Amino acid sequence: MLTVKKFGGSSVATAEKITAIAERVLREKQADEQIVMVVSAMGDTTDELIELAKGIDQDPYRFAREMDMLLTTGEQVTIALLAMAFKKLGQDAISLTGRMAGIATDDVYTKGRILDITPRRVHEELDSGKIVIVAGFQGADAAGNPVTLGRGGSDTSAVALAGALKADSCEIFTDVEGVFSADPRIAKGARKMQEITYNEMLEMARLGAGVMQPRSVEMGQLYGIPIHVRSTFSQNRGTVIREDYTMEEKSFVIRGVAHDEKVAKIAVLGVQNTPGVAHKIFAALADANVDVDMIVQSIRNIEKNVTDMVFTVAIGDLNQAKAVVDKVAEELDAVAVLIEEDVAKVSIVGAGMLGNPGIAARMFGALAKAGINIDIISTSEISVSCLIKSSEIKDAVNAVHNEFFPA
Amino acid sequence: MLTVKKFGGSSVATAEKITAIAERVLREKQADEQIVMVVSAMGDTTDELIELAKGIDQDPYRFAREMDMLLTTGEQVTIALLAMAFKKLGQDAISLTGRMAGIATDDVYTKGRILDITPRRVHEELDSGKIVIVAGFQGADAAGNPVTLGRGGSDTSAVALAGALKADSCEIFTDVEGVFSADPRIAKGARKMQEITYNEMLEMARLGAGVMQPRSVEMGQLYGIPIHVRSTFSQNRGTVIREDYTMEEKSFVIRGVAHDEKVAKIAVLGVQNTPGVAHKIFAALADANVDVDMIVQSIRNIEKNVTDMVFTVAIGDLNQAKAVVDKVAEELDAVAVLIEEDVAKVSIVGAGMLGNPGIAARMFGALAKAGINIDIISTSEISVSCLIKSSEIKDAVNAVHNEFFPA
Repeated sequence: MLTVKKFGGSSVATAEKITAIAERVLREKQADEQIVMVVSAMGDTTDELIELAKGIDQDPYRFAREMDMLLTTGEQVTIALLAMAFKKLGQDAISLTGRMAGIATDDVYTKGRILDITPRRVHEELDSGKIVIVAGFQGADAAGNPVTLGRGGSDTSAVALAGALKADSCEIFTDVEGVFSADPRIAKGARKMQEITYNEMLEMARLGAGVMQPRSVEMGQLYGIPIHVRSTFSQNRGTVIREDYTMEEKSFVIRGVAHDEKVAKIAVLGVQNTPGVAHKIFAALADANVDVDMIVQSIRNIEKNVTDMVFTVAIGDLNQAKAVVDKVAEELDAVAVLIEEDVAKVSIVGAGMLGNPGIAARMFGALAKAGINIDIISTSEISVSCLIKSSEIKDAVNAVHNEFFPA
Repeated sequence: MLTVKKFGGSSVATAEKITAIAERVLREKQADEQIVMVVSAMGDTTDELIELAKGIDQDPYRFAREMDMLLTTGEQVTIALLAMAFKKLGQDAISLTGRMAGIATDDVYTKGRILDITPRRVHEELDSGKIVIVAGFQGADAAGNPVTLGRGGSDTSAVALAGALKADSCEIFTDVEGVFSADPRIAKGARKMQEITYNEMLEMARLGAGVMQPRSVEMGQLYGIPIHVRSTFSQNRGTVIREDYTMEEKSFVIRGVAHDEKVAKIAVLGVQNTPGVAHKIFAALADANVDVDMIVQSIRNIEKNVTDMVFTVAIGDLNQAKAVVDKVAEELDAVAVLIEEDVAKVSIVGAGMLGNPGIAARMFGALAKAGINIDIISTSEISVSCLIKSSEIKDAVNAVHNEFFPA
């Protein structure tokens, strides 16, 4: 049996925590289990390294190749200390940088993508009885330069390694107990899900649930590696992300309620309803790398053939989106551009809704019963999202969650 | 023209100092000059990493391979920051770890020796117009594991790289102006030497002068690379260590006065003067890895054929030496073993004394004139050393220095 276990920065923030992780892993280790650990930089190390670089230049990321030379040291420190911790406990172990573990990336420094993994050395060390500890968040390009995978990249390292090693499972240890049916800080009855599919997890992440990086879930799906999301602080079973459910988990038609408060609404009012108008607006936004989410086109004046274009963007993209839209609106001779920032999105996600008509209607009914007005609705194959006032988001999450997960 | 320039940890202790070094190097750069920089970890970084490891285990050096994985991050941080500093100033630059620079070592972790250097990448980057910044103190073994060269190893990295690159010179930047005729903190008239030979420098280092690591001087001699020891804080010319002098420097018969207060004297009194006695004592010490320096055998009682064996060891080896000697003395039925710690050694070093009889006599005369008693004398081809009371070491250094370097 081969298991990949990933621990994030807060789990390895001090020497004591690193020792505690080594003890925990050994306590749970099966006799025939081969273990690969993937770890992040300790605590705030990455931020501290960035601060150091800012002492040289205000915008050090313009020296991306050197930023990666700098940042990859963070995980290298952790892997060395964790290997020592295992050895101190009598368990042979060895640390490997991303390059040494055979993680080959492109050369897009600070945002590298894994091209291939050749884990020859990892297998050799496992076969000699060692626990192998690999630096997360990093690989090397063809010339041997260190490359980071960008923030959150340690999850991707772990899942990709599990795939390349044909591991039996990949465990992602985090500060929550697993994937919940809604954010437990908001929905009182939120329950931990036993299982969730890759597609559902990706949809949950897209719609605001922050447990897993989408890239790592995609990687799991690509290689068919079940991802077990569980807590660093307990021995409980968490949530397994996999291709399909085992039988007993099929009872839920939806898998979770996601919400996202970091959205803004843009309305371009009074443009001519002629071919190419939508394309003009959204092509300009795409050129500026702004992701557009919910889109509604509504008739303003059918006789004059005039329409309104309404859509949402991430709040972080709002300034850039506004600049682009203002320019296009002028070219299109629009009546006005309106921005609303006090909006939020509540969504339900579940592969089960495919064969279950009426799911969306139940969601709308629950919101109506709670007196919450819906501004925009959008749907995908496995989700329904409603844009509402941000002041009502907590009530909305609870209303929808109670509808599908009654206590 | 190709120059290797090495800066130590105190020269790169902060982002500001790193920027200052980049500015200084660019100010001095010749139009046709190719530059390779070798740098150490910032300030106390190495000590901080060791402390971190002690949080895992009190004696982390027993996990030597993992210590090297940990410690090599220190220089990796510096090279990244220095490369950024050059790029910010408009000079293209690239950082390379020891492994990337082609520095191949054995696998004696934490005390690695350089086996070979294949600086293909260094040449490529130089030829593309970059300043190349190499992590000092490190290389990699045949399996690609990081290996440190031990404390002071950055000097060795620099000189070995200069040799492999067939550099025109290797500049070691330090916190002193060069190699002095005596320790300037003690000898009032100490002067900076323009030149000194490899052999003299090695002898000076052996006899207590701390400017350069002997290994790096040996490396310079092996490859015939002149080593220019100079100050980080001034633009002055320092001291060039080379095979032989240029004409004008031949006027000095001795090159320097060295002294060493970290010595102890051991006397084994009253052993039989028969073949094999000396061998017994010194073989036992060699087996225990104790270096013995000055040795004198003196007759105690010619009729009984009884002799005394007197010698010196480094103070750090004294406890171990005493244990060994006590045991052998018992076997030899010696009268007593005496230890003296209040001793010190003053030495003169110079290739010029080979053709100049009477140099040693001048030294003894100078000490006698100052009223200083000599306990033991030892000589090599290019040095004469006298063991004296440690309370008289300052007077001794000044007396000898004034004799050979009159104001």
